Formats: sequence, C-alpha cells, structure tokens
Amino acid sequence: MKIYKANILHTPTPDKVEVIPHGFIAVDDNGIIEGTYPNLPPHLQNIAITDFGDRMLIPAMNDLHLHAPQYRNMGIALDLPLLQWLETYTFPEEGRFSDLTYAEKIYRRFVHGLWWNGTMRSAIYATVHRDATILLARLLQESGMGAYIGLVGMDRNCPDYLQNSTTEVIRDTTQLLQVLDGDPLVHPIVTPRFVPSCSGEMMDALGELAIRKNIPVQSHLSENVNEVAWVRELEPESTCYADAYYRHGLFGQTPTLMAHCCYSDGIELELMRQQQIYAVHCPSSNCNLPTGMAHVRKLLNNGIKVALGSDISGGHTMSIFNIIHYTIEVSKIIHAETSGQEPFLTFSEAFWIATKSGGSFFGKVGSFEPGYAFDALVIDDQRLNSSEYTLAERLERYIYLGSPADIQHRFCQGKELSAPSLQ
Amino acid sequence: MKIYKANILHTPTPDKVEVIPHGFIAVDDNGIIEGTYPNLPPHLQNIAITDFGDRMLIPAMNDLHLHAPQYRNMGIALDLPLLQWLETYTFPEEGRFSDLTYAEKIYRRFVHGLWWNGTMRSAIYATVHRDATILLARLLQESGMGAYIGLVGMDRNCPDYLQNSTTEVIRDTTQLLQVLDGDPLVHPIVTPRFVPSCSGEMMDALGELAIRKNIPVQSHLSENVNEVAWVRELEPESTCYADAYYRHGLFGQTPTLMAHCCYSDGIELELMRQQQIYAVHCPSSNCNLPTGMAHVRKLLNNGIKVALGSDISGGHTMSIFNIIHYTIEVSKIIHAETSGQEPFLTFSEAFWIATKSGGSFFGKVGSFEPGYAFDALVIDDQRLNSSEYTLAERLERYIYLGSPADIQHRFCQGKELSAPSLQ
Repeated sequence: MKIYKANILHTPTPDKVEVIPHGFIAVDDNGIIEGTYPNLPPHLQNIAITDFGDRMLIPAMNDLHLHAPQYRNMGIALDLPLLQWLETYTFPEEGRFSDLTYAEKIYRRFVHGLWWNGTMRSAIYATVHRDATILLARLLQESGMGAYIGLVGMDRNCPDYLQNSTTEVIRDTTQLLQVLDGDPLVHPIVTPRFVPSCSGEMMDALGELAIRKNIPVQSHLSENVNEVAWVRELEPESTCYADAYYRHGLFGQTPTLMAHCCYSDGIELELMRQQQIYAVHCPSSNCNLPTGMAHVRKLLNNGIKVALGSDISGGHTMSIFNIIHYTIEVSKIIHAETSGQEPFLTFSEAFWIATKSGGSFFGKVGSFEPGYAFDALVIDDQRLNSSEYTLAERLERYIYLGSPADIQHRFCQGKELSAPSLQ
Repeated sequence: MKIYKANILHTPTPDKVEVIPHGFIAVDDNGIIEGTYPNLPPHLQNIAITDFGDRMLIPAMNDLHLHAPQYRNMGIALDLPLLQWLETYTFPEEGRFSDLTYAEKIYRRFVHGLWWNGTMRSAIYATVHRDATILLARLLQESGMGAYIGLVGMDRNCPDYLQNSTTEVIRDTTQLLQVLDGDPLVHPIVTPRFVPSCSGEMMDALGELAIRKNIPVQSHLSENVNEVAWVRELEPESTCYADAYYRHGLFGQTPTLMAHCCYSDGIELELMRQQQIYAVHCPSSNCNLPTGMAHVRKLLNNGIKVALGSDISGGHTMSIFNIIHYTIEVSKIIHAETSGQEPFLTFSEAFWIATKSGGSFFGKVGSFEPGYAFDALVIDDQRLNSSEYTLAERLERYIYLGSPADIQHRFCQGKELSAPSLQ
C-alpha cells in the first residue's frame, strides 16, 4: 500500500469538482485506489506518506482519438482544404512508416509527447504497416502507459502505397493480437479507417475478427457534410452512416469508439445509444479542418457516452487540457448561436468527460473513487498563483493557462512513470 | 546603426508570409528600420552584426484591447453568465484598485505579463482610479514598451464604488495627459467604458476632450445581443449602437478602437468604414463569455481595419499568439456553419492582422519594411523542430504549439527590453 497526500481534485459526477484539501489517497500494490480521505483513517496510520505539499493531485488525461504517424504534421498546413491536406500532407507522411527507422524516430517522440502532456491512456491509430505498428505497441509497453493500438485497414479511395488487402489487415491485426496477448495495459483495437476507405469485404472481415476475438473497434463517424453524403452513395443499403458500420459488425458488437459525430442525428443517435458507442469529441480538429461543431450537449442528452480526443494532426495539440477548454469554448459558441437554448458545458462537465467518462473505456479509470486505477498527475501551479485562489479556481486556471512543464509527477495504474526514451 | 541577422519572417501584405532565410535587418539609432536584406549591402559592411543563428525574427505582438485590473481573474469563473461574472468577479476586483498597494502588485504582474508574452504595444483599460492609473502608466514607461492607457469613465448602471462623475473623469484624464506629456511611447486614450455605463453628459465631455486635445478613443461595441438591445433603449435617437458614440464625438473624430463588433451590420459597418474605426477582434473573450462570433472576413470585406485583443479576463490568455490561432479557428467555424460561403482567414492574414494591421494604430509598427519601428521578437523554436520544416511552417508551428518561454529577445522601437521588475 502507498499513501499520497496533496490537494486532491476529481469529478466523480459531472456536476461539480470534488475538492479534498490536503487529502490522502491510499493505493494498493496493484495500483488500485483503496480509498480517498480528508483525514488519515486509523487503519492507514503506520504507512509512510508521500506528501506533495500544496500541489494538486488530479486524474490523468485520456485521449481517445489520435493518429500517431501524424505527429510530425502537428501545427502545419492548416490553411489547406481537407482533401488537399490529406493528399499533400497526411497520406505521404503516413506512407513513410514503411521505413522502420523513420517510424521509430517519430513514434518515440509521439510516445514521449503522450507522457509529457499527462495523457496516461489513449486509443491510437497507427498505419497499415505491420512492423511499425508492432514497434509502436512495444514502445507503449516500455513506457508503462495504457493504450489501444490500431493497425489501420484501408483498401479503397486512398493512394496505392497506403492500401492493404483484407487478407493483410486480418493477418497483421492477428499478429498484433499475439504480440500484445496478456499485456495488462496495451491492447489491440480493430481499426477500419472509415467507410469511404474500406470495402464491404474488409469491413465484414474486421467485424468478424472483432466479435470472434472480443476486441474493441475504433473509426470515424459523420465528421463532415461531404463525407456523410459520400457514405450515403457508397452504402445505399444503410439507413445512416452508423448503420454502415453496424451492418458489418463494427458498431457496438464490441466496445466501440467513433470519432467526431458532428452530424449524427435522428436514427444515428438512437443506434449510438442502443449500441453504447463512445462519441469521441475532437474540437481542435473540428475547428482546424474545418468540419463544423459536434453538439456534445445533444449527445449527452441522448444518453450517449462522450470522450475527448486530440486527433493530431487534424488537431494541433496533444494536450487534453487544451482539448478540455476547446470543448467548453465550442459548446459556448453553440450556446450563443442558438440564442442560449442549448446550455453550454460547464468546467466540471468537461473535466469529467476528459477523465471519468473517457477513462471508462479502459475500465475503472479517471476518478479517485475506491476501486479505480491510480492514474494521476501532480501539478505544481505555483507560477500561476499570483494571488489567492480556491482549489477549484486553481484547477480551472491550470487548464486554461498551464503547461505540461507544470506536471511534476505522472502515475499510470499506480506506477510513477519517468520520461520515455527518445532514442 | 545596428544590424541583426536571423531567419526573418513578416507580413507586409496579408496574402503571404515573407520569408528571408538568414537575412539582415539594419536599425537606426532611433529604433527605425533602415532596410531588410537577404544579403548584406555594401554600405553596411563595416557594422558589427548581432547574429541570432537559426532562430526566427518576427514582428512583436500588439494587443489592442485588454483590462489590466482583471489580470488576477484570468482563467476563473468562466461558467458564470456575463452579468453574474461582472457583479461577482469583475467589478469587485476593479474596486480593489482604490488601494495603491494592491494596484502596484497586480499592475507589476500585468506589465510583466505583456513583456513575457511578447506584446510590445497595447491599448489598456485601467479603472476609474486616478492614482492607480497613473501608476500603471509609469510602470509602462519604465518597461520600455509602447501603450495607450485609459482611465475608465462610468457613471451609470454599475456599482457606486466604481462610478466617477463627468467632472472627475475629465479632471483625472487631464492629469494623466500631463503625466504622459511628451512621452514617445506611452500615451493616454479617452475611455468611456461603454454606452450602458456612460451618461450622455459624460460621453459629450469625453468626446469634447478627445477632439480638443486630439487624443484617441477606445470603447466596446455590439459585443452581445442583449447589450445591443439595451443600447437601443438607452439611446433611442441613435440610428445604431455606433451612432451613439458618434453623436458624442467618440467615433472616429480622433483615432478610435472599438472592441468586439460581433453584431455590427448595415449602417453600423458603413459608419465604421467612413470613420476609419479599428474593430478589435477578441475571439477568446467572445467564446468564453459567450457572446457569439465576430465575422472578421465581413469586417475586412467592408473596408474596416481589424486588430486583435486578448480582452483579459473575458479572454483567458494574454498571448496574442494564442489569439491568432483563435482568430483562425473562429473564422473556420463560421466557414463551416455557412457551408463554406465565407472564406476562412488564412494563417498569413491572421498574422498580418496581429502585427501590421493592429500595429498601425501606433504608427509604422508591425512590419519589417523600411521606416517601421523595430518591434521584434527572437524565437528559439528548436524544441519544436522534431523534423525538417520550412521557415513558414516553423512560424505556424510556433503559433500553434509554442510558448512565451521560447521568446529569447524582445525589442520595442529598437531597444532590447529586459523583464520588468515584479517588485
């Protein structure tokens, strides 16, 4: 058992930040929280305490949608329209991951970036390349962070050099499965890129694999208007974009992440709710590409689970702290544009989505309640405290004004993680 | 004469970033740029060169709208609706500036914040308090940065402890004028808070003072829907919100900054164009409060000058670099919401608005053309260069991913400025 003392802040419920000034967290030898206490209870009196003083201890961040091979392209080419951006920047960069030396250089930086930004769990798209994807999985294993790693399947409407066949994607995903078999923190995830780049045959085979091996699924859904119209043409038998995945066994038959959902409505929302899909909100990407705004309040009101994603390099930042405030800002723009009819997301709601709601895809992750994994960050926000602030205000200021450099300690499943090697 | 060598990037025109790799800038003894050269010309061969190596040299930032006394409140209370936010946080905080000791503590941090964020010129709202406002002006003078300082006038619809009378605001603004008389960089600016908090009598007197002494003016315009409706009630004789200022001599009779302009349209836009008003776009504030989105493309298309403002603490960040990417993001949301009809702002356009367009309020500021003041930042972006990037890409990445800690040198009007003292 270990005991940590600090100013503890978390969101067991979305309606408020729970604050325990100079509180205690007891963590068992498996990295699971035994309890969180305002005062040290008698049964823990004889255990050494690690005291973080006036620092804040908060749940670590979870990033449920990002493209590791696009790490290099963060923050560039954001003037280009989506199609030109894909053709000139995204696809050629992903093509470079056939070269394992290049892949190792970028993936090491990417894994370091997750750690640096305090993101202890993530759901990642790699590329179609088996060896590079296995390398990425091994780097994540070495890091001590939790992740789902997806070998991307795509066999239509993309450059030849980025296509794999149905046989290949099944063979290579199966190999990834074997590599990760039994790993407690790093897992495979079935990853058809999205309907326009996957034939029915490929989607059928991936759906069958996911169900047979009970592996989760991730893909993109209803990101922009043209894409939604295109899917309607490509899959005329489907009642909606979501139904195209559903018919192929890729929509909630196993736990499923769907990024964006900006234009999900009507029967699509109903199918998402029924199939317990996670909508992964990526506001930075939505603003940059630009696709429009996902209505998170509407998703929540429809009983749909919501998580956050950085979606680099459509998104320009790997910081989920930044994504939290973008989530609030976009919801406030919708609030203003609807003359106040759709209530905006509060700070505690957005923090809860980033931590407990997103974290639930990994099990009991994202809160400091008993039974949860101890995924935590120690924040030294001293430089931001030019004046007296309440602890809840300090957390809000950290998220709006802080930097990864202010994160002093990072824990995943109870283990403190040091910086992943860049070489 | 001084010569600086670096990777030079600036925007003489909005359509592209002009890049001069390892170029030279010659700056005369008054801090004015003599010329910018790809190669050193013969007449400058015998002058010592300060070589910044592979770093980037860019124009410094200009912040045309921010509230110094709200420095403490950055990044907190952003869940509150506007009115409650004003009553619970903003007004009480401004009230504390009757205490000179408190004012000095916060204003020193504020001035340091401008410097830290690379903002070398700004147009600042102080409070109604004369002594604190003069103190702020003196701190700016000591810092070496350029600024317009406004003693706020407000005599209705606000707490008693924040009201001044017409007599007082004229007397105190006149004293500020005397204090700053002859200063080359720090100037007074006439500052009626906004129509709802200023009586016709106060606005008349301030307009008369501005015209008689030829002092510029700053205020707020058409920030949110309720405010626009309220002004229509308060000033029934005015044809639009802008006309209420115009009729009192406060709208372009001298150079004028108007913050927000989210709901300016029709005759208001025409009056802005005719009176050569600067619309100060504050996207972070607009998202946070939430007021709606200013259509910068429409303002530009109507021939209106545009500048950027952080608007702390409605805005949560003092970094105009952040405001640049918020400007692009908001324009992209408008682009998506209008089905692509309104072209979004490109990176170079937004950079030009922040530098040359905003800088023009201070004279020849914001570009590296001959005759311009040498207001410049040296950026060490080495940590962002995980791969090869063009210089234009490096600038874009710095603005999306960089931090004030990456600014290595700051120049205002040719003089390198060290950190303003916090004590």
